[in-house]
Amino acid sequence: METITVALGSRSYPIHIGPNLIEQSDLYGLEAKQVLIVTNEVVAPLYLKRVQSALKGRELEIVVIPDGERHKTLATFTAVIDRLIDARFHRDCCLVALGGGVVGDLTGYAAASYQRGVDFVQVPTTLLAQVDSSVGGKTAVNHPRAKNMIGAFHQPTAVLADTGTLRTLPQRELAAGLAEIVKYGIIVDAQFFGWLETHIDDLKQLDAAALTHAIRRSCEIKAEIVAEDEREQGRRALLNLGHTFGHALEAIGKYERWLHGEAVAVGMVLAAHTSASLGWIERDDCKRIERLLARAGLPTKASGVDVGELLDHMRGDKKADRSGLKLVLIRSLGEAVVTRAPPEGALRAVLAEQLK
Amino acid sequence: METITVALGSRSYPIHIGPNLIEQSDLYGLEAKQVLIVTNEVVAPLYLKRVQSALKGRELEIVVIPDGERHKTLATFTAVIDRLIDARFHRDCCLVALGGGVVGDLTGYAAASYQRGVDFVQVPTTLLAQVDSSVGGKTAVNHPRAKNMIGAFHQPTAVLADTGTLRTLPQRELAAGLAEIVKYGIIVDAQFFGWLETHIDDLKQLDAAALTHAIRRSCEIKAEIVAEDEREQGRRALLNLGHTFGHALEAIGKYERWLHGEAVAVGMVLAAHTSASLGWIERDDCKRIERLLARAGLPTKASGVDVGELLDHMRGDKKADRSGLKLVLIRSLGEAVVTRAPPEGALRAVLAEQLK
Repeated sequence: METITVALGSRSYPIHIGPNLIEQSDLYGLEAKQVLIVTNEVVAPLYLKRVQSALKGRELEIVVIPDGERHKTLATFTAVIDRLIDARFHRDCCLVALGGGVVGDLTGYAAASYQRGVDFVQVPTTLLAQVDSSVGGKTAVNHPRAKNMIGAFHQPTAVLADTGTLRTLPQRELAAGLAEIVKYGIIVDAQFFGWLETHIDDLKQLDAAALTHAIRRSCEIKAEIVAEDEREQGRRALLNLGHTFGHALEAIGKYERWLHGEAVAVGMVLAAHTSASLGWIERDDCKRIERLLARAGLPTKASGVDVGELLDHMRGDKKADRSGLKLVLIRSLGEAVVTRAPPEGALRAVLAEQLK
Repeated sequence: METITVALGSRSYPIHIGPNLIEQSDLYGLEAKQVLIVTNEVVAPLYLKRVQSALKGRELEIVVIPDGERHKTLATFTAVIDRLIDARFHRDCCLVALGGGVVGDLTGYAAASYQRGVDFVQVPTTLLAQVDSSVGGKTAVNHPRAKNMIGAFHQPTAVLADTGTLRTLPQRELAAGLAEIVKYGIIVDAQFFGWLETHIDDLKQLDAAALTHAIRRSCEIKAEIVAEDEREQGRRALLNLGHTFGHALEAIGKYERWLHGEAVAVGMVLAAHTSASLGWIERDDCKRIERLLARAGLPTKASGVDVGELLDHMRGDKKADRSGLKLVLIRSLGEAVVTRAPPEGALRAVLAEQLK
């Protein structure tokens, strides 16, 4: 097991990475006697019993939500709050999020809001959640017209990234997690990007050492950026490489056509070509990015998407402000920057080429 | 006009107190170009135009919610969020809460949650909101089974307590605000309590100098306590004198029988008698408290309420934790403490006497 720390003063917390962590009671770091486990109907049959047994002796409640992004809603959030109230959970209770990003984001927002904030522990069971959504304290639910529009910054008290749970993860979701791992290489660590080019097949085959290295390096990069800029006033926005494009694609696909990581993969390719159109990176760098994502099993094209519709969705993104659309673009492999989007015409030309 | 500051580092903000403040654009301290005013159908006809005119030149949106505590719900919260999304408001927008505690709490929670947090300004138009709910950053909506169960700590960027707006406030609501003012005297300032005994009639007659003094002193006390303990880990709980009893009474009365301040007034009397039963204060102190509240036009008895039902509701209160029910009780006039509740039998005896 490896442990790294997200350094946020009195709200610092550990991320534990390794196999079979969910069985180890002490890693949860729980002081609470009242614990609500939130999980979903896919994860529950696989791992709930082991978590329950690790937490035995406490007053345990369980909420099992349906699987899928379309259940990351205020309605599901309300169901979690209802259970907390029914069970008369106090302010010193703790929530445990057992599942992927949907479970983690929703549980985190419920923890942020219940009685104006209670503790929660992240137990991410997807690669995407292990390297991204479980770390950093962003919690939210979706609005019918836009993702993650309703939420809070609320840090967990611990993260248990159990690599053993990835054995039951569908291939497509594993690839979606790899998209975020590739992102860390592109935005701040060209050497890690090179390592990924060498080890992408090991990761796809769930090689334990490769997985632990990739998850640890990803969490390290994210933890370091979050510690520097918890509320995304500045540098944290780099983590959104590909996400403004990606969120728009997800919305256009009604959150069904693409998994989040798949939309981000396409979004990173669009960001790469936009960067190349500014002369920042070479077409060869675009190819390296596309090739690595494709080898990871990810889509790199969004054929048939309407350019106007995409731009319209992008303007409603959280990263937009009154000074206009902002994008994360690539200065060079391993160095991303937040910048004003290129003029509409130039952006349209790049997108038209990529979306045809 | 008087101005005091809530000292919270980078989140410090001014409270302006005086007549005709809502017309003065600069007091809002707005940098935002996109501004959503949330108000209710009683306040809108009285003051909305003056606020709109103070904020002219900005992209203004308005949401008018129905009047009353029973609309402080996730459904109304969702209506505010919907408007923000419909209008494509960005992260650098600002919400303005024009109204009483319901408008302020709900708008604050919407500001806390929209895109994980945007700015908001409090423009409280009731005495209760001016001396209590608009200051300190507690925001929330009610759950059908308990008040303020879903919320956030989110500080406003400015508070405009326009004493001129109190001229249109019904007598009953003015009295409800006086309950919280009396509270400040009881918990930390015996001299202020004495001042209130002398000036309660001036306050009821809306004497400008008396009002400004009482509101300023109340906000000073609250600001000082909040600056010391923003998230209610300790001393801030003193502000809940009478509130554990009061919230239970409100719930039993289905949020219709009593206004919040009225329930708190009765709750403070119950807290006083509980304190006297422990030998902490004299029966004479109880009488002074009851007399002042009665002169303010407040109820001091909750005849006919079932003791068991009251205790049951109290145990579900946010201030409860696994170590049992906690109460704010009175050591002496001007000094309150947070303490474990007396043994059930003793508490029942006090309540039975007061509720008969």
